[in-house]
Amino acid sequence: MEKRPLILVSNDDGIEAIGVHELVDCLLKFGDVVCVCPDGPRSGQSMAISVNTPLRIERLDDWHGAEMYKVNGTPVDCIKISMHTILGRRPDLVVSGINHGSNAAINVVYSGTMGAAFEGCACGVPSIGFSLTTHNPKADFSGCLPFVDKIVGSVLKNGLPEGVCLNVNIPASNPAPTEMRITKACKGRWTDEYQEYTDPNGRKFYWLTGKFKNEEPDNEDTDEWCLSHGIVSVVATALDRTDSCDITFLTEG
Amino acid sequence: MEKRPLILVSNDDGIEAIGVHELVDCLLKFGDVVCVCPDGPRSGQSMAISVNTPLRIERLDDWHGAEMYKVNGTPVDCIKISMHTILGRRPDLVVSGINHGSNAAINVVYSGTMGAAFEGCACGVPSIGFSLTTHNPKADFSGCLPFVDKIVGSVLKNGLPEGVCLNVNIPASNPAPTEMRITKACKGRWTDEYQEYTDPNGRKFYWLTGKFKNEEPDNEDTDEWCLSHGIVSVVATALDRTDSCDITFLTEG
Repeated sequence: MEKRPLILVSNDDGIEAIGVHELVDCLLKFGDVVCVCPDGPRSGQSMAISVNTPLRIERLDDWHGAEMYKVNGTPVDCIKISMHTILGRRPDLVVSGINHGSNAAINVVYSGTMGAAFEGCACGVPSIGFSLTTHNPKADFSGCLPFVDKIVGSVLKNGLPEGVCLNVNIPASNPAPTEMRITKACKGRWTDEYQEYTDPNGRKFYWLTGKFKNEEPDNEDTDEWCLSHGIVSVVATALDRTDSCDITFLTEG
Repeated sequence: MEKRPLILVSNDDGIEAIGVHELVDCLLKFGDVVCVCPDGPRSGQSMAISVNTPLRIERLDDWHGAEMYKVNGTPVDCIKISMHTILGRRPDLVVSGINHGSNAAINVVYSGTMGAAFEGCACGVPSIGFSLTTHNPKADFSGCLPFVDKIVGSVLKNGLPEGVCLNVNIPASNPAPTEMRITKACKGRWTDEYQEYTDPNGRKFYWLTGKFKNEEPDNEDTDEWCLSHGIVSVVATALDRTDSCDITFLTEG
């Protein structure tokens, strides 16, 4: 008998988030699920790794048949230590999320959810990050599940191109989305990024905030366009950072 | 009279590192230098941002005419808050480093040094990360300086392609390097990544370690090959993560 696929799950909202429990429930039909998450929120952790602090692993009660662990590190730490220590064999798939909040456009570079997916990809395992476009901690993830089913089934069957993982963003729309498109990360940037405060001792401090300025709002090929039109976006996302542009002027003269 | 270029400097080794002071000294001939660094080591912070904690800015004594600041955040935080709060005008260049340790190959994705450079790039400012291939905190950076001069001079004159920053790695070789090449990030991965310990209470903990396994050791086009042959490597590095590979199987059937 063929072994059931082994699926490693992580996130950046921490082990107590609803999104990762909904994801685990959805994945159990596809294989054995091991869920290894940060011990608390690690949003915006990108591909950060814990270099100067030790990691601890704590096994929790199983969830509907899935093994559950928490780690005092980043999403990338969770994937690395799972591969090295927790998992008895190489996983067939890494799935991260479902994130509470969009990871479309430039957000992909800061996202801890996508950090875990990139790390899975760096280990040579097909990897997917799922995000729902609402930060509501009690969000309704039911609209995500048909797309998780479809994409996970397809990736388990077909694999993914080497060095590429998927960034899947699902609109928190009502009615739930019915369509899915392959898109690209929208160009744009964050502006007005800090709110300034004064503490009781008269010292200033700053808190990250800001607005996303879409630089190509009419481009139907982008993730942002699809999401704003109630369509699920799938972006093929590369781990390799090397660009093929011409910079030979640097070595001339 | 034309304004002198404004150069924003950061790093991930923290405001006290030798590497960033050597970099500032080298950059003062090109323009006005403002140096904004984390208040301590932030190696491996990638593009992490502080979402759930406030930031504070502390101005320090000038260094040889450069304004010096420390921030209780990540390298990306330093760039963001500089753009928003510290700098009076838009910088002409962002330079990060000189890192104590290589950021070649897969290290580019974990690097806080390159995180700062990517963030500069995300703001539309030509950005460069410099790294020396030794973790020695008292490293001799003199071999880097001719290459910092050459590359910074050239980028201030020519700019960089949109969405691309430079990842410059300099071998800590003796004699100092004399050659520089445009390369690409070497394929490879980290293995044996954790050392296991037991604390006095019998609980296990883990510390990140590991060895880099070069998957294309004979490829002369890679950064790792150049560095191991005493040659400075410059990689054009893309902020955009979208890959052009074919994943249409996901939406078929």
